[in-house]
Amino acid sequence: MLLSKVDITTILRYNSLVMREPILRMLQQKEHVSGETLAHSLSISRTAVWKHVNILRRMGYEINSSPHFGYSFIKSPDLLFPDEINCGLSTSFMGKRILYSTEVTSTQDVAGKAARRGEEEGTIAIAEKQSRGRGRKGRHWISPIHSGIYLSVILRPSLRPDRALQLPLIAGVAVIRAIKATTKIVPTLKWPNDIMVNGKKAGGILAEISSDTDEIHYIVLGIGLNVNVLKSHFPSPLQETVTSLMDISGHHVSRVRLVRCLLSELESIYLEFLTSGFDSIRKEWLSSNNTINSEIKAVSGPETIEGKAIDIDKDGFLLVKEPNGHITKIISGDVLPPTKKQERIP
Amino acid sequence: MLLSKVDITTILRYNSLVMREPILRMLQQKEHVSGETLAHSLSISRTAVWKHVNILRRMGYEINSSPHFGYSFIKSPDLLFPDEINCGLSTSFMGKRILYSTEVTSTQDVAGKAARRGEEEGTIAIAEKQSRGRGRKGRHWISPIHSGIYLSVILRPSLRPDRALQLPLIAGVAVIRAIKATTKIVPTLKWPNDIMVNGKKAGGILAEISSDTDEIHYIVLGIGLNVNVLKSHFPSPLQETVTSLMDISGHHVSRVRLVRCLLSELESIYLEFLTSGFDSIRKEWLSSNNTINSEIKAVSGPETIEGKAIDIDKDGFLLVKEPNGHITKIISGDVLPPTKKQERIP
Repeated sequence: MLLSKVDITTILRYNSLVMREPILRMLQQKEHVSGETLAHSLSISRTAVWKHVNILRRMGYEINSSPHFGYSFIKSPDLLFPDEINCGLSTSFMGKRILYSTEVTSTQDVAGKAARRGEEEGTIAIAEKQSRGRGRKGRHWISPIHSGIYLSVILRPSLRPDRALQLPLIAGVAVIRAIKATTKIVPTLKWPNDIMVNGKKAGGILAEISSDTDEIHYIVLGIGLNVNVLKSHFPSPLQETVTSLMDISGHHVSRVRLVRCLLSELESIYLEFLTSGFDSIRKEWLSSNNTINSEIKAVSGPETIEGKAIDIDKDGFLLVKEPNGHITKIISGDVLPPTKKQERIP
Repeated sequence: MLLSKVDITTILRYNSLVMREPILRMLQQKEHVSGETLAHSLSISRTAVWKHVNILRRMGYEINSSPHFGYSFIKSPDLLFPDEINCGLSTSFMGKRILYSTEVTSTQDVAGKAARRGEEEGTIAIAEKQSRGRGRKGRHWISPIHSGIYLSVILRPSLRPDRALQLPLIAGVAVIRAIKATTKIVPTLKWPNDIMVNGKKAGGILAEISSDTDEIHYIVLGIGLNVNVLKSHFPSPLQETVTSLMDISGHHVSRVRLVRCLLSELESIYLEFLTSGFDSIRKEWLSSNNTINSEIKAVSGPETIEGKAIDIDKDGFLLVKEPNGHITKIISGDVLPPTKKQERIP
């Protein structure tokens, strides 16, 4: 059973992380390790080893013990501890520094503050739960504990502010790659920032930008993914329009593995974007999207345009062909199903 | 003599502003007011009146006193106290709340923090001195004490983030109007954000934007003006390229009056911008600018384009016609004199 917020915070504060890591490493390297070996290696008593193992169990680690063989490691809990994510992470800067919390208002708030105090590009804020998770236009993002990925990354690209609009698109491609690589699910992208599976929303991307008129100061790029979220976590009107990776695959999906893969894909695509621009990634976005070639209604500020979504241009803007043949460029907005036409009575 | 930073801060903390205001009001209404009348009206002793008057004098207010006539008000110091600015300010929201400091790193920092804690649109941060005043691209803005206007205003327009590029242009027009109304100087605008007088820089505008990809959260619009700045305040390489209003007019210019007028013009043009868009203001910008019809070199990020500046478009972007006839749109950047062509030896 997973611990409550208070328990974990208390443990992280008082239990020496310095002990947790070497104990886990030794346990994971061999099938069995005796209490005596652990105690000797760590220069602590066998009773202290026993106490640390019990704390690890309370954190969700499964560890067997027998008088004959000593301790044996069974499995990790799926908690987003920085050392769990960092173990085997192949990036050079993305997620190398992790600001982990059990509960936050929004990881965007944590990463935003960190960006303002000068934290480096690639620093991420991640949390088990958000009390005021948000999506585009201040919409609420439901973020139940231990079930989703709520991750915000600090980016500092030397780009004009208008280029920031492309970040959610390239991040979408990274999310698709990561989900494909860690599950058998093939999601699609809905312009501008939704991750869809079987026509339902499984995730979203939010870019909050600080800039002047010449250049971006920093971007806090937020990624929210319904990984092991249950339908019952959502209010009933939403249950028909959202889904989760567990919902689709029928089994629990490792958040740690998915985060690690996501950070790796994000670093790779971000570097490609900085060196080669949006155009090469545009093709991959198009090959994964479910918006183009659909009849849609695009709502952008006070304006509504209905027509066929025909492409995204080199800047990432959506091109909509209206029934009169006129092509309109949508810079930002929501894509909705078209208004149903009244059937003509013959 | 004006007080040092510490003196003023101490006075503002310990001297009841509640007393300063009614004393000044009574003094300004009549030619002479006796100590007894003041003491009676304010329910304090004549000695207390005397102490308050002395503090006002130390703040820079000129107040005469004679045994026969009592006190008589001569003039205010040109300090940017909120009550001095607010007295006669005709705006409905612009500058109605003023965050005043003697010295700050940058008024942009003060207003940015205020915006994040939710201060209302129109709130301004103003200071007598900036230790780390900044212009576009993190350039240093020299901000000597009691000599310039260093003002940052919080704006919260419900607009797409790309529209933020127009704010420095409309603010430029407001600055031109305010300078014309309070002095006999006719400045010009250099795209995108410089206030020029006689071909030298007298001020600049900086817009720092917080947004997502759909909408602006807030803008901190900074205005820096060399009002009574002396040439000697600038390092010698800059002395030939900068100027101040005092430099041009030959006399001290009231900063308080100019700030009041600027806030009024800014509110009026901002409301026009929100209701009618950039286009009507574009004409006024064009009529006050010194960029269009000049041969220029535009440096935008890594790119440099030389040609004739021919117009600004409906979005506020600069249109440059290259010698081959090709017209390039410059979204942001610096406008410099063209590279001098080597004379051909005949």
